[in-house]
Amino acid sequence: MSLIVTKYGGSSVADLSRIALVAKRVLALVAQGHQVVVVVSAMQGETDRLLSLAKEIDPRPAPREVDVLLATGEQVTIALLAITLHKMGCEARSYTGAQVHIRTDSAYNKARIMDIDAARIKADLQAGRVVVVAGFQGMDEFGNITTLGRGGSDTTAVALAVALKADECHICTDVNGVYTTDPRVVPEARRLPRVTFEEMLEMASQGSKVLQIRSVEFASKYNIPLRVLSTFDPGEGTLITAEEEGMEQASIAGIAFNRDEAKLTVLGVPDQPGVAYHILGPVADQGVEVDMIVQNVGQDGTTDFTFTVHRNDYDKSLTILKRVAKDLGAREVLGDEKIVKISLVGVGMRSHAGIASKMFQALAAEAINIRMISTSEIKISVVVDEKYLELAVRALHSAFELDQPQA
Amino acid sequence: MSLIVTKYGGSSVADLSRIALVAKRVLALVAQGHQVVVVVSAMQGETDRLLSLAKEIDPRPAPREVDVLLATGEQVTIALLAITLHKMGCEARSYTGAQVHIRTDSAYNKARIMDIDAARIKADLQAGRVVVVAGFQGMDEFGNITTLGRGGSDTTAVALAVALKADECHICTDVNGVYTTDPRVVPEARRLPRVTFEEMLEMASQGSKVLQIRSVEFASKYNIPLRVLSTFDPGEGTLITAEEEGMEQASIAGIAFNRDEAKLTVLGVPDQPGVAYHILGPVADQGVEVDMIVQNVGQDGTTDFTFTVHRNDYDKSLTILKRVAKDLGAREVLGDEKIVKISLVGVGMRSHAGIASKMFQALAAEAINIRMISTSEIKISVVVDEKYLELAVRALHSAFELDQPQA
Repeated sequence: MSLIVTKYGGSSVADLSRIALVAKRVLALVAQGHQVVVVVSAMQGETDRLLSLAKEIDPRPAPREVDVLLATGEQVTIALLAITLHKMGCEARSYTGAQVHIRTDSAYNKARIMDIDAARIKADLQAGRVVVVAGFQGMDEFGNITTLGRGGSDTTAVALAVALKADECHICTDVNGVYTTDPRVVPEARRLPRVTFEEMLEMASQGSKVLQIRSVEFASKYNIPLRVLSTFDPGEGTLITAEEEGMEQASIAGIAFNRDEAKLTVLGVPDQPGVAYHILGPVADQGVEVDMIVQNVGQDGTTDFTFTVHRNDYDKSLTILKRVAKDLGAREVLGDEKIVKISLVGVGMRSHAGIASKMFQALAAEAINIRMISTSEIKISVVVDEKYLELAVRALHSAFELDQPQA
Repeated sequence: MSLIVTKYGGSSVADLSRIALVAKRVLALVAQGHQVVVVVSAMQGETDRLLSLAKEIDPRPAPREVDVLLATGEQVTIALLAITLHKMGCEARSYTGAQVHIRTDSAYNKARIMDIDAARIKADLQAGRVVVVAGFQGMDEFGNITTLGRGGSDTTAVALAVALKADECHICTDVNGVYTTDPRVVPEARRLPRVTFEEMLEMASQGSKVLQIRSVEFASKYNIPLRVLSTFDPGEGTLITAEEEGMEQASIAGIAFNRDEAKLTVLGVPDQPGVAYHILGPVADQGVEVDMIVQNVGQDGTTDFTFTVHRNDYDKSLTILKRVAKDLGAREVLGDEKIVKISLVGVGMRSHAGIASKMFQALAAEAINIRMISTSEIKISVVVDEKYLELAVRALHSAFELDQPQA
């Protein structure tokens, strides 16, 4: 008998027939002898509906009250799922985040979980009940209702799994696992039976939006196996675990890409200590998040400095940069908002030489010009012109034989 | 400076524009220097919408989970009202029933309030905030969410007024006070500036559905002045208080009536101890509520026994009664579902002789036959044929000069 925390997102509980399907999935786990805690999101569209009511009153509604409002979304779902489970003859009890003491800090709209008192849930599980918990919400130390921000239900599920020392945490969604890359771009993309937390983090942050990144970090920190599954098409999904000692790693797990990037370059900056800070400081001060950063040292005592930002922040960043460049005595500011980032991800990269050269060779063979390169221990990212995105991803997927099950 | 608890029902918060109107009413009280606690119901139609979702899943949905579901209705309203108050520059904080420790028993769907810990609300009031509390809901000793049953928001408001030792409890609704009778029947009906708790109880239970009867009992028990006001047409409303010593009472406060009654009579029952119990026991056992009861002792050792029930329970009661009558050796069972009850209510009745005879005279003058009479200390009720309802109420309203302000 295992203890499983299983989470269903908004599209999985969008209406009563889907809630009935979720109830059947839960009963199947119970029939296999597992203890089950179910975490659910608000019904699809409900959070947006509530938020738009608040914004109709006030474009910047009081944050504390927004959380009181939004928390009702999941509360409706837990009640409907528990009623459905009862109807199917299964003893179930629903709880709001506050009721099971999911204690958070007081950062309304984006609270972080500090602590969970699992005693009550354990007692219900011991008594043979299924426990249904509202995702996305908690309570601060003063008893105020808080929400964790979008996607927070994943975090709730992992946090409960940690607190309960669960055997696995299932994240049930509308895809049946993590793929080598986006199947809409590469039809041969293959479901990965298993990836490591590190790989998942690199894939998620690069645009494979299957799992909320905070929940993966959380699961990794406490070593809770995560499984991504489809609600509608059950199967093994993808198991996300820590890297095992002596495990033969595939060199590459997958290819992530991000269409929403823009690139900015400051050319001919006098090369002095503090240049990076003087360029990026004013950008960060305006709330712009910087992604890749590359600096090349030039030969005439100047340096070229390039970074990427979200495309929505391109115009703002360019304006800031032109002012900064003048102050720093830089030669020129260039920008390009028609670029994309493509990343190869894999823990096996560490022990396999030649991954980078093979990547660059595959792109060269298609005459794709690389505009920027950045590497980490388990990832190589390149920036290319937007028009090459599909071609580049397919070329890499094929070059690394990601359509074949790997050793 | 007074402390006022003010309650707005579902029709007063039916949409965002009405919520804005409620917020303005609250701000007006604050501007007058009062400390204000607002209790709100779910937006009109929301409770029914949620309940029908539950019943779509299961015609008899799990009671505990129904309360989790329904409690979201008021939670949405408190958040929207607090957001609106903030937008208008007023510091406000919303709380669910559980958050302000409205402790109830565990009778889901019809819980009773046991205790309220007012410390948190007092602290907010001290800090100059308006406090917005979800009506209709609470939490049992185990932390389960409970609801008080329909109309429970009135009870929440009075219970909070008691716990906070408020100066007045306002019940804001879509009528601007308590009337001498229903203005739809008697256009000359007059708003009563003041009635006693006892009168209000008799009026409410007789069909003047302005206030939930439990809340009037509660306010009476703890002597909290209640004021019935219109949300949309502000004014003095009707103040409901304990009877004051030496206060000159109007002999009659008003005329209540109830269209939903049906009458059942058992004729010729052998007159023995326990007859009433043997007749009413089986009826009560089937969950039928009995209203008026009249028994006349006959001369041949038999008695006639008459009572009224809600018209919906007429058929059921008749069936039971026929069986019972046979067992008891009664002569005959009669029934009439085309009757109504009309009641004169007034604490002054106690000290004014001749009210009853004046009532019967007024009805006789219109040739209205009285089918049944029942009296209490501050009320005289008669049952007449349904077709005479309007005529009888108007005749009594005029005979007792209720259209004139009374001494």
